[in-house]
Amino acid sequence: MRATIISIGDELIHGQCVDTNSAWLSERLTGLGVKVARHITLGDSVEDISTCLKDELTKSQLLVVTGGLGPTLDDVTREAIAGAIDQPLQQDDDALQQIQSFFARRERPMAESNRRQALIPKTCTLIPNRLGTAPGIRFDGRDVILFALPGVPAEMKALVEEFMVPLVRSRIGESCTRSRVLLTYGVSESAIGEQISELMRRGRNPSVGTTASRAIISIRIVARGTNDAEADRLTQQDTEEVRRILGVTVYGEKDETLQSVVGRLLLQSEKTISTAESCTGGLLAKCLTDVPGSSRYFREGYITYSNEAKCKLLGIPEALIEKHGAVSEAVARGMAVGCLTKTGCDFALAITGIAGPGGACPPEKPIGLVFLALASQPAGTIDPVAVKRVLLGDTLTREEVRDRATKAALNLLRLRLLPC
Amino acid sequence: MRATIISIGDELIHGQCVDTNSAWLSERLTGLGVKVARHITLGDSVEDISTCLKDELTKSQLLVVTGGLGPTLDDVTREAIAGAIDQPLQQDDDALQQIQSFFARRERPMAESNRRQALIPKTCTLIPNRLGTAPGIRFDGRDVILFALPGVPAEMKALVEEFMVPLVRSRIGESCTRSRVLLTYGVSESAIGEQISELMRRGRNPSVGTTASRAIISIRIVARGTNDAEADRLTQQDTEEVRRILGVTVYGEKDETLQSVVGRLLLQSEKTISTAESCTGGLLAKCLTDVPGSSRYFREGYITYSNEAKCKLLGIPEALIEKHGAVSEAVARGMAVGCLTKTGCDFALAITGIAGPGGACPPEKPIGLVFLALASQPAGTIDPVAVKRVLLGDTLTREEVRDRATKAALNLLRLRLLPC
Repeated sequence: MRATIISIGDELIHGQCVDTNSAWLSERLTGLGVKVARHITLGDSVEDISTCLKDELTKSQLLVVTGGLGPTLDDVTREAIAGAIDQPLQQDDDALQQIQSFFARRERPMAESNRRQALIPKTCTLIPNRLGTAPGIRFDGRDVILFALPGVPAEMKALVEEFMVPLVRSRIGESCTRSRVLLTYGVSESAIGEQISELMRRGRNPSVGTTASRAIISIRIVARGTNDAEADRLTQQDTEEVRRILGVTVYGEKDETLQSVVGRLLLQSEKTISTAESCTGGLLAKCLTDVPGSSRYFREGYITYSNEAKCKLLGIPEALIEKHGAVSEAVARGMAVGCLTKTGCDFALAITGIAGPGGACPPEKPIGLVFLALASQPAGTIDPVAVKRVLLGDTLTREEVRDRATKAALNLLRLRLLPC
Repeated sequence: MRATIISIGDELIHGQCVDTNSAWLSERLTGLGVKVARHITLGDSVEDISTCLKDELTKSQLLVVTGGLGPTLDDVTREAIAGAIDQPLQQDDDALQQIQSFFARRERPMAESNRRQALIPKTCTLIPNRLGTAPGIRFDGRDVILFALPGVPAEMKALVEEFMVPLVRSRIGESCTRSRVLLTYGVSESAIGEQISELMRRGRNPSVGTTASRAIISIRIVARGTNDAEADRLTQQDTEEVRRILGVTVYGEKDETLQSVVGRLLLQSEKTISTAESCTGGLLAKCLTDVPGSSRYFREGYITYSNEAKCKLLGIPEALIEKHGAVSEAVARGMAVGCLTKTGCDFALAITGIAGPGGACPPEKPIGLVFLALASQPAGTIDPVAVKRVLLGDTLTREEVRDRATKAALNLLRLRLLPC
């Protein structure tokens, strides 16, 4: 099955947005065994889209179009499909009702323009969209199926999973390609590349590759087999080998995050955690509470952004800050211990650092200097606080420093919670 | 001048990488006044690329190809160009020397495979690349110019600036296209579309279009003029008109965020803000502290995720939570007032809501039900607390509910801070 993916939008063709839908669709379709032949991006022009669709309808077996289904006048994908298949647009009553109820559920009035979203070309089928107001459109040609889907990624993905994947599966059978992604934190991509170089050899099956994104290195294992069982066995073998070589550097698989893994470990050990943050300003608590059900281990957190707040809320002596500075091992330790005492949780995690662009005092205190502290009960035992100094590098942006500091803190907690 | 951008690479067509080169090229070319008609992405197949190039060479005045110029056997853009223009590949001695000296300068041996990078089709011109081993290739047809550039973004961009931009400028003169993006919050895309429908008329100059992303609707104004001053004047006119029609719904332009605008308003009015968060778990404080220099108006924040924390830290009576529930107008109000009292800031912003997937109790308390409260000094004046009930819709993910709740809270504060 040969597929073409077409993305529609002036914001794409003018370069104001990067098209991420096509990559996602390609990966999903390739995993199902579909050969994606090309991506095409077009602006919001009825003629351009219509001409392109007419052409591609003769070349592909599967045509996936995203974008241009919104309510406003610059959304013209409906008209373009109608033109390409030479059918008039007509109102779909089911679609109109779905759109009306979408607004009713939110107690909001429906704009007149939303009625346009209930128009679909004659001989096409409506694809209901529970997440938004833009229904998708399906057209079945003689040798080709066209899916037109909304450009909003969450809506597009939901419709693909519900309506397109089952259809593709039924046409080409189960796939004999399996992939797995292992996620690591704390070791560089090149160091990981050296450690698993034997598995990464070109032409090997499974193929093993690495990608770095925001300090997380993912290792992708893709196996081809003559049947599903063989493909499963091959990915499993490599997964075990990578885990054996990299040990606790591997924190999870696929969609897991450091916070979801930490959450699972906290639940398993029935421990609670609280936070005291300076430079991350709430990001650490936000990440911990990203996880559904986090209320079972997270109850409260302090954002002590100013020195006064550190003293007032966490009981840090003013003199300590004066002596060592707010970004110091002593203050990180004080924040964690103060937070532990105040909350009575099993763990308290504290972050203080210099996120930039201001506030740095190099060479002693450059941008990216961060201190993490993890205090744990029972307070008062010998060295109950682990403190870590991290130098994230002064080429990072403010946003990156805060992200990396939070990940380092979550990983500190993760390593502490891992069974020995 | 009509341009087509073609990206080459199996990693793109398999969806393992997102193509950012095309967006960058589009924005650069659009800014110069070139009309980018389409992007095409193809895998590393000589036939596919060659066929596509042959076709596009007849349709465009400018053809920009990126990728597939590397040393390995899967890099076939050179062969494909040779096929498309029906010329043999031959070694370019200058290119070979440049590649050899690239390695010599780094005291590294040159692999035999790098010799392939010195091959270019006869009648083409070499584009020297100082940043890498892949030289670019230029082909001048009767009505079209083709640039084939390396896929590595930094190398591609350097060659564009040095060799392509001057050529485009000399062909079409100084740019006469200007674009501006206005950002709005709080009104749906369709309602905005209705309000500015006259400006969004197809074929009008400037063209005006809308895009929705995570509850922010952006309005893009692109003007073409016979000279820069005219293009500037046209965008300025439309900007003023959109602002006149939409009023405070427009919160900013281009890269501004609700939190950066709120930050500016707080600085201007010399006010301070503190936060009390339940369902957003730190995200509101994180957003406020995204902004460099936010320490001048943000000092502390409370994450009161559990009911106990709400009582202990913000002085909310247990009975109040028992009577109304933690997600209620009364508790939101109590959180804001408690936070204001505790911190002594000028404003205290509180959020409590149901982010899901658990914790909902429909129909009274569905997922996406959020209460926001903004308390302000002097405490004790009549109705010093603004409370807002928001129904975000139960189809949103946990992540989306938290994002939307935070934006609604920031906007509540923004509207309060705006000069009357």
